[in-house]
Amino acid sequence: MRTTTEQHLAPPRRLTAKGEATRSRIVEAAAGLVLLHGITRTGIEDVQREAGVSASQLYHYFGDKQTLMRAVLARQTAEVLAAQRPELDALDDFDALSRWRDRLVALQRARHCAGGCPIGSIATEVAEDDPDARADVVDSFEQWEAPIRSGLAAMRDTGLLRDDTDTDRLALALLAAVQGGLLLTQTRRTTVPLETALDAVIELIRSYRP
Amino acid sequence: MRTTTEQHLAPPRRLTAKGEATRSRIVEAAAGLVLLHGITRTGIEDVQREAGVSASQLYHYFGDKQTLMRAVLARQTAEVLAAQRPELDALDDFDALSRWRDRLVALQRARHCAGGCPIGSIATEVAEDDPDARADVVDSFEQWEAPIRSGLAAMRDTGLLRDDTDTDRLALALLAAVQGGLLLTQTRRTTVPLETALDAVIELIRSYRP
Repeated sequence: MRTTTEQHLAPPRRLTAKGEATRSRIVEAAAGLVLLHGITRTGIEDVQREAGVSASQLYHYFGDKQTLMRAVLARQTAEVLAAQRPELDALDDFDALSRWRDRLVALQRARHCAGGCPIGSIATEVAEDDPDARADVVDSFEQWEAPIRSGLAAMRDTGLLRDDTDTDRLALALLAAVQGGLLLTQTRRTTVPLETALDAVIELIRSYRP
Repeated sequence: MRTTTEQHLAPPRRLTAKGEATRSRIVEAAAGLVLLHGITRTGIEDVQREAGVSASQLYHYFGDKQTLMRAVLARQTAEVLAAQRPELDALDDFDALSRWRDRLVALQRARHCAGGCPIGSIATEVAEDDPDARADVVDSFEQWEAPIRSGLAAMRDTGLLRDDTDTDRLALALLAAVQGGLLLTQTRRTTVPLETALDAVIELIRSYRP
């Protein structure tokens, strides 16, 4: 297991406030292009144009496309998790679980079901061709799964779920439901698959009440 | 809703046996490259080389890359469904459901968890950039979901599930579990996510026994 993605978020050297802003603008521009077209079809020149920076500026902050794409994944991961807060960090009762579910669905509705999961999309794109990037995506999913695991474990510890509930297993099933639900929601352009997938696993979790 | 993918499988005109074999070899070569590298990174020249055909031969059978990629999706869909048979067509009791689940897991184990779902990967790649291709993927997923729906409905009709069971909803949750499970299995290179996701929804289905 690799260390957390924090290290990729950290700038490669100490930057001035202005340098930090430029670096951030580059990552933001790249992330937007990757969301729309994927990593492969996002050229370094496209990022330069979108961010309004020169080739040498881009090179100064990110030596190559791979380094830039790591930063994009770190940024997307941080954004995906932030969009699920505060619920994601306190999934410790059934109400919180419902609010988190509603938030995920509302996010998709707000973007007309377009885009899918930024992490899942990158996962698909890099999984067979780039083992390092795949390892980064493993980290990203782990950052997502960990708070789900903690929440369900807390529910068990406070007696909301039976003592013998395998909460790690349910947490993984929930993350899979999110991913499968998002992919089908993106493809069919309706939130029904995401809602159905999440509600099914949440219903299973409810069946573990004492 | 569009018509079935059968029409895309049909050759554009009546072909001789030799022509049919050449066409099929081109689609096979293209499908292999798409599995490894995705649609974007699969160039027409790569397909020519891999299939051992000339540019004019390829053009004869597929006027453009989009037409070829439709044929690739149709082929992948047929293969994905065939790999789940005979179970997929008769998911009408709990044993069949278990055997289907085991078959899906065994397939991933056999390929060392690489590759993910050929249909899901294409879905991710085309969803935002190509509405026609996205509509084709909707068809592909529907061809997959329909027999799951039929199987669970049969289980309800024969009394294995309660009369009031919403089997359509459970079928969609199962397909989402397959997709999310496959994506996480591909990323983590272990069948645990696929097994966990499928087992969770199957456990929920079992809870609907009379």
